[in-house]
Amino acid sequence: MDTTISPQALRQAIRNGEHQGNTSGYAPGFVQCNIVILPAEWANDFLRFCQLNPKPCPLVAMATAPGDPALPPLGNIDIRSDVPSYRVFRDGKLSEEIPDITGLWRDDLVTFALGCSFSFEEALLADGLDVRNVTQGVNVPMYRTNIDCAPAGPFAGNMVVSMRPFVAADAIRAIQICTRFPAVHGAPIHLGDPGQIGIADLGRPDYGDPVELKANELPVFWACGVTPQVALEAAAVPFAITHSPGCMLVTDLRNSHLAVL
Amino acid sequence: MDTTISPQALRQAIRNGEHQGNTSGYAPGFVQCNIVILPAEWANDFLRFCQLNPKPCPLVAMATAPGDPALPPLGNIDIRSDVPSYRVFRDGKLSEEIPDITGLWRDDLVTFALGCSFSFEEALLADGLDVRNVTQGVNVPMYRTNIDCAPAGPFAGNMVVSMRPFVAADAIRAIQICTRFPAVHGAPIHLGDPGQIGIADLGRPDYGDPVELKANELPVFWACGVTPQVALEAAAVPFAITHSPGCMLVTDLRNSHLAVL
Repeated sequence: MDTTISPQALRQAIRNGEHQGNTSGYAPGFVQCNIVILPAEWANDFLRFCQLNPKPCPLVAMATAPGDPALPPLGNIDIRSDVPSYRVFRDGKLSEEIPDITGLWRDDLVTFALGCSFSFEEALLADGLDVRNVTQGVNVPMYRTNIDCAPAGPFAGNMVVSMRPFVAADAIRAIQICTRFPAVHGAPIHLGDPGQIGIADLGRPDYGDPVELKANELPVFWACGVTPQVALEAAAVPFAITHSPGCMLVTDLRNSHLAVL
Repeated sequence: MDTTISPQALRQAIRNGEHQGNTSGYAPGFVQCNIVILPAEWANDFLRFCQLNPKPCPLVAMATAPGDPALPPLGNIDIRSDVPSYRVFRDGKLSEEIPDITGLWRDDLVTFALGCSFSFEEALLADGLDVRNVTQGVNVPMYRTNIDCAPAGPFAGNMVVSMRPFVAADAIRAIQICTRFPAVHGAPIHLGDPGQIGIADLGRPDYGDPVELKANELPVFWACGVTPQVALEAAAVPFAITHSPGCMLVTDLRNSHLAVL
């Protein structure tokens, strides 16, 4: 499938089962979102968790009412079928990975759409920066840190970060670029010594793949959208659904519209 | 003298010989400038040097004609008397340090006013950051680097940088703050390993005083207004005048007006 497909056509293809798997690189210029779906009973605490931890959990949109599968600000969306692959969690544990959740839908489910690093990586690449995980064609390395998230009800845990190496001048430029995009994790939260945030070995990420860190480069760390997934698992929510990693909700919202200036 | 004096009253006091020495901390909120005065014959090359090297040489204003001692955009200024102390260079060498240059004025002299780090330090302090040279009450440490300035006629040389240590999160914040102020050196040009820009020993600055660098801190480097002075000396201009270090032109322009956003 042509990656320059429109978000609307891509969602239609996904809905029809014609596109499965990763959405990275498709519909360039448009926001892709992490998805969390929870029973209404848990949704208020999760909303508060996002509000308290905006850097790892930047809320782009949420459903207007329990049971409503639409997300009007993001396009003509049916969240039950418009994500290529879903993960279903029962009692905090992954129970199945499926391409459609229509059969599991309930009238108490609330959908959250969270910003994703694809948006700021696009801005970094457009500025000519070398985004190592893209250059190497691997998943970005992600690490659990010793930074506590602010807890909200059962949702708690340490922040997960993604890491991209840059020479100092490019790190400064990346900070400038990402500062414009608070809705997709915003500016980095750390750079330099990984030990200061509890990372023992950059070569062994907790999620994703290791990338090369050259001798003249600094590791630069961003708050990561895996953080809410970890909080979700830790909360042992009886029932929850998320997107599968890399299989995002592709929206009609332009990345450039997320820029605060 | 009360440091909260207005820029107009401070310049009047300086003009009358009632205030000599450092202007640091006086007239808070208002832009203070580095001053370079050159014969018209050299002024065009110097202007081009500033244009080519905007980070170390951010031009805030210049005289509208040779021999004119006014700088209208910066206030009601007579540049011959409104700086507390001047350095006179002959053939690139410092020949005298005097509180008034009225007796040396010539009808071919052109004045340049360049941005100064006082403005961005004020913004960093206002944000609650620990600016180490301010906390320690010393001059900021400055270093010659291996970064070549773009040459213009006889003006050339390596960039001089100032250094302020910060923990990573504060370094990121400092980059955000200073990005708003390109007219006063803007964002840092480097952080982390000093060796990468040719600095062998942070404990031995080429100008100013050393400051403490704590184990969990990164050195952060800004392009510095000493750069044009070094270029001036290297060019061995037959006649030139600058302010004495720390004895700046205090202007009517607010620091906040330099913010590009």
